[in-house]
Amino acid sequence: MKPVKAAVVGLGRLGGRHAENVARRVAGAELAALCDADAARLAVYAERLNVPRRTRDFDQLLAIDEIEAIVLVSPSVFHPEHISKALDAGKHVFSEKPLGVTAEDCLAAEQAVNRHPELVFMPGFMRRFDESYAFAHQRVKAGDIGKPLFFRGVSQDPAEGVREAIAFAPTSGGLFLDMAVHDIDLARWFLGSDPEAVWAIGDCYAYPEFAECGDIDNGSCLMKFKNGAMACLFAGRTAPHGYNVESEIVGTERILRISSVPQRNLVEIMDGGGVRRECFQRFLDRFGPSYLNEVQEFFDCVREGRKPEITVRDGARATRIAYKCKESLATGKLVETGL
Amino acid sequence: MKPVKAAVVGLGRLGGRHAENVARRVAGAELAALCDADAARLAVYAERLNVPRRTRDFDQLLAIDEIEAIVLVSPSVFHPEHISKALDAGKHVFSEKPLGVTAEDCLAAEQAVNRHPELVFMPGFMRRFDESYAFAHQRVKAGDIGKPLFFRGVSQDPAEGVREAIAFAPTSGGLFLDMAVHDIDLARWFLGSDPEAVWAIGDCYAYPEFAECGDIDNGSCLMKFKNGAMACLFAGRTAPHGYNVESEIVGTERILRISSVPQRNLVEIMDGGGVRRECFQRFLDRFGPSYLNEVQEFFDCVREGRKPEITVRDGARATRIAYKCKESLATGKLVETGL
Amino acid sequence: MKPVKAAVVGLGRLGGRHAENVARRVAGAELAALCDADAARLAVYAERLNVPRRTRDFDQLLAIDEIEAIVLVSPSVFHPEHISKALDAGKHVFSEKPLGVTAEDCLAAEQAVNRHPELVFMPGFMRRFDESYAFAHQRVKAGDIGKPLFFRGVSQDPAEGVREAIAFAPTSGGLFLDMAVHDIDLARWFLGSDPEAVWAIGDCYAYPEFAECGDIDNGSCLMKFKNGAMACLFAGRTAPHGYNVESEIVGTERILRISSVPQRNLVEIMDGGGVRRECFQRFLDRFGPSYLNEVQEFFDCVREGRKPEITVRDGARATRIAYKCKESLATGKLVETGL
Amino acid sequence: MKPVKAAVVGLGRLGGRHAENVARRVAGAELAALCDADAARLAVYAERLNVPRRTRDFDQLLAIDEIEAIVLVSPSVFHPEHISKALDAGKHVFSEKPLGVTAEDCLAAEQAVNRHPELVFMPGFMRRFDESYAFAHQRVKAGDIGKPLFFRGVSQDPAEGVREAIAFAPTSGGLFLDMAVHDIDLARWFLGSDPEAVWAIGDCYAYPEFAECGDIDNGSCLMKFKNGAMACLFAGRTAPHGYNVESEIVGTERILRISSVPQRNLVEIMDGGGVRRECFQRFLDRFGPSYLNEVQEFFDCVREGRKPEITVRDGARATRIAYKCKESLATGKLVETGL
Repeated sequence: MKPVKAAVVGLGRLGGRHAENVARRVAGAELAALCDADAARLAVYAERLNVPRRTRDFDQLLAIDEIEAIVLVSPSVFHPEHISKALDAGKHVFSEKPLGVTAEDCLAAEQAVNRHPELVFMPGFMRRFDESYAFAHQRVKAGDIGKPLFFRGVSQDPAEGVREAIAFAPTSGGLFLDMAVHDIDLARWFLGSDPEAVWAIGDCYAYPEFAECGDIDNGSCLMKFKNGAMACLFAGRTAPHGYNVESEIVGTERILRISSVPQRNLVEIMDGGGVRRECFQRFLDRFGPSYLNEVQEFFDCVREGRKPEITVRDGARATRIAYKCKESLATGKLVETGL
Repeated sequence: MKPVKAAVVGLGRLGGRHAENVARRVAGAELAALCDADAARLAVYAERLNVPRRTRDFDQLLAIDEIEAIVLVSPSVFHPEHISKALDAGKHVFSEKPLGVTAEDCLAAEQAVNRHPELVFMPGFMRRFDESYAFAHQRVKAGDIGKPLFFRGVSQDPAEGVREAIAFAPTSGGLFLDMAVHDIDLARWFLGSDPEAVWAIGDCYAYPEFAECGDIDNGSCLMKFKNGAMACLFAGRTAPHGYNVESEIVGTERILRISSVPQRNLVEIMDGGGVRRECFQRFLDRFGPSYLNEVQEFFDCVREGRKPEITVRDGARATRIAYKCKESLATGKLVETGL
Repeated sequence: MKPVKAAVVGLGRLGGRHAENVARRVAGAELAALCDADAARLAVYAERLNVPRRTRDFDQLLAIDEIEAIVLVSPSVFHPEHISKALDAGKHVFSEKPLGVTAEDCLAAEQAVNRHPELVFMPGFMRRFDESYAFAHQRVKAGDIGKPLFFRGVSQDPAEGVREAIAFAPTSGGLFLDMAVHDIDLARWFLGSDPEAVWAIGDCYAYPEFAECGDIDNGSCLMKFKNGAMACLFAGRTAPHGYNVESEIVGTERILRISSVPQRNLVEIMDGGGVRRECFQRFLDRFGPSYLNEVQEFFDCVREGRKPEITVRDGARATRIAYKCKESLATGKLVETGL
Repeated sequence: MKPVKAAVVGLGRLGGRHAENVARRVAGAELAALCDADAARLAVYAERLNVPRRTRDFDQLLAIDEIEAIVLVSPSVFHPEHISKALDAGKHVFSEKPLGVTAEDCLAAEQAVNRHPELVFMPGFMRRFDESYAFAHQRVKAGDIGKPLFFRGVSQDPAEGVREAIAFAPTSGGLFLDMAVHDIDLARWFLGSDPEAVWAIGDCYAYPEFAECGDIDNGSCLMKFKNGAMACLFAGRTAPHGYNVESEIVGTERILRISSVPQRNLVEIMDGGGVRRECFQRFLDRFGPSYLNEVQEFFDCVREGRKPEITVRDGARATRIAYKCKESLATGKLVETGL
């Protein structure tokens, strides 16, 4: 079976990783083209990965007939436009989260996907492709934990990256849209329902800089789901120990906890500080394999003519819910999601 | 220095333990009298602990002049009356939580305490006297974690005790008043502030029996504190692994987590289930030493003529906040605490 | 039932603790006398614990008729003499380890005990009275782990106490007799057999000072037991993290591990060092309750007219085996124990 | 740079994995040929991995000029012959452990390697390429733990694979050669020295079947190193919880512990058994990435014209020491290694 010819759009830190994966590690894929606004970066990756075609213009990229699939890692603000155009150009599309940065954006993306049932579209929530999350979800789906009743999700970025986060704040969409959206997706996935009401709170506890663009450095929210289940999320940008993503699913018969310590490897160190484990510092260290797995699944779907379990609706709803959190944070009120 | 002559009122499971402690393990205390409505139980303990005086009548007890201090472990509904009468009779009072089961009750208790500045009054929140909680609080107070911004509190009773919980449900006050009130006290203690608004949700996920008396089997709430900090509490009666009390305090510079695994001892077992730790099943196994420590502190205060750090106001506020949670759960609304 | 009138001999750090326990915490015991060569120390404890009789002379102590039981915490070198004399004077005897510092000593002690079957004698191996060790032993005894085949024992003193250890080295008996003797006792207890051959190695890796009195700072030994089981012990005086006592029992069907992390409490700390737990620094912090439990058992035996499970033979054999380790270390050879 | 054309010899479970890795995951390698005595297996892999050349005859394989490198995963008994012939045929050689099953074998392999300084030879001790072991070694090498003084190595196969192990026993070389040889390599690597004396013990505690070919089901040994350091190894075939490889390096200033719990992923499960982690069951699940890393390093060496850190001498010595353990086990004596 011939490999699927693909292009990666956007060569930032994560885009670069996706490009390497498609070029070298994804079975059944061929990295045929690269697209990025930055010519230097484009040249570096094209050279390093030996990619035949490169362009700074997204429309030119779509005009290349042999490209069958697009891996979108462009800035969030371009997602809806890129998704629509690529699908309309007959390309399968994998898009990193979020679908868009406004509700209209998400709707536009959703409509584009619905216009093209013949094409594969997959939004990127890599945590679902982490082996521990996948294992836990399998258990939940098999009924091992009884009825899931409470989801707890924690997403923390390391304090040592806070300057970077401050610089990114004006375009990040804010704490809930940028970080908690992953936990929102997990909560929906594990609880099998949508939240009907949310209350979100938070503040700038350490870095007033975030307030300048209406953002916060740490926040949390409580969600009541339509099936009666509950979720509490906590997200923060000031974790002292590293990059921490942790989840818990409480069922009526069992409880599962995922990554309660973000240990970077299997080494324990005994010294003056006691017994300790060093932690992950970068999301790519923690979720590197998941980013590979999700894109592998996308290409497998394309080749096998099937649709991924995760859909555009999952992407749209997670984004919508994150917006509702943002609204709740801004107004101080309990907000109905309308789902 | 002569020991303080004391009486224990109420000889249920916890009351029995308090009686044993006062009789045998509390330095500077002498168990001089016992009071319980159940004559048989009264006889058993009086015999076993060699207590000279016993009565089924609280007023008679107060009439015994030589009794200087009362340890109240009577049913919650009697707390306000017993507190007031004992103080008015000139006795120092230690009272197990809660102060009362209505807001008026708490107020009555608070007023009685304020009427008697010459006497020691101490409400019993034993977790503050657990060595791990005390250690964590010391660190927080010393500024080690920076500014505390998020408190997470979990209180879970073991599923294997659920029948007992159902039987107790009609008079327990409900999940928030009975269980989460301890986490509310901890949240206030660690965050150094009071919540201004709460939203509580929950349901009967496994045992509809709780609904019959307006209670739930699992619930959670989110709280916004006046100083901007956040707290999320989760309480449940169906923990598969045992009696689980767990807390986390997120600060701007450090995070502390207390008892993330409720391991009953230091043994790890490797078998077909993997690597596992067995857990506490009963609150007295987990908090036995704390119940001793708190009463020791009470008697030390009496003997040294000083007041405990924990005050009637702490007890009253925790109870009031638990009520607000209950109100939020019942109405589905965000509730202002008025604090 | 009247309490047993007892004397504590030797008021060093551990002796002081024993005196406090007998005076205040051991049910059924009454601290009637104290004996120590140091008059000042004697006065301090007698005062503090309100002990009616005190003497610097052991023979005078034995002459006090009303004393029924002796708790020996005198320097090791006096143990055999004190044990014999006390038993011959008709007193029940609890003796801290070791029974003596030579093989003849142990024999003398053993003979004295055998001369007095009417009296209770109990050697102090407090680890057997730690709740986790007791739990593990119960499981092993019940056959839960199948056939025990390998015991691993680790005893480490904290590096921060190394100066103290160096000062104590000339009279400590050496690493195996002073520290590993506890693991030898545990190995015998868990494996239910005696070693037939031992090979011990070690060196002064960090502190040449120990070599001056023929001792080492870290050592290990391997033992082959008569029933075919194996044991490997490691002992050291330079643990960077604290006071660490850790054991593992491998059975054909289950493995038990005890205290694999010597965490001082239930708090986890997240900071720049990762996720860590602080550790015990002093043996009395780790084994405080065990020292109480063992003496309680001694007094219970005296009052109930029964013999403790642990016997003089256990004490004598552990000491003898520790000597064989010492001999192996000195000669570099495999040594038969002759048991 | 052109990829190195390579052949994989031996397509058992591990050989199959190596073939897949060379075909798909090792950068700079091209799987040009396969060799296995079993025609069916050969066909399956050649098909699946699209390998142009295949042969059942090792000499025919060596005759293929374009093959530059050989990855040997043939049965241990063929290793020395295959190594010599391949090197003499001008091929770079990666050989899975052991170098051979007799001392003469190892010597022969060592001589062959020394005859060909122009070629890359690398023995496969995959643990050195596990990220946690590599991390620990880096710390040790950097002096972070002070002077390493004790190494503890545990290798346990899961009880559920014991039937397979019994079937393999006649040709496995025995517990020390088959399993502990990895720990011997680690001990040498971490301690930076060779053992001068070893004492090994063990027995058939659960499966007398192993005795039929002179093997045991669980064993341990103690080693004294030339630089004074110590090592204790434990190996067994009856682990109740899974595939367990665990190590500890005690230094004068820090202690490192690697994989003290062989948790298969990051999920904790709370249920009636307490809090537990499920474990790895198969060595390829635990060390899959290491097997890839080691072969990647081999091909990188070939392409970059450098020699790997691990040498034929490491392989030869580890094997020799394992033999000395076997000898000690058989004779019951302390054995000098002659190193």
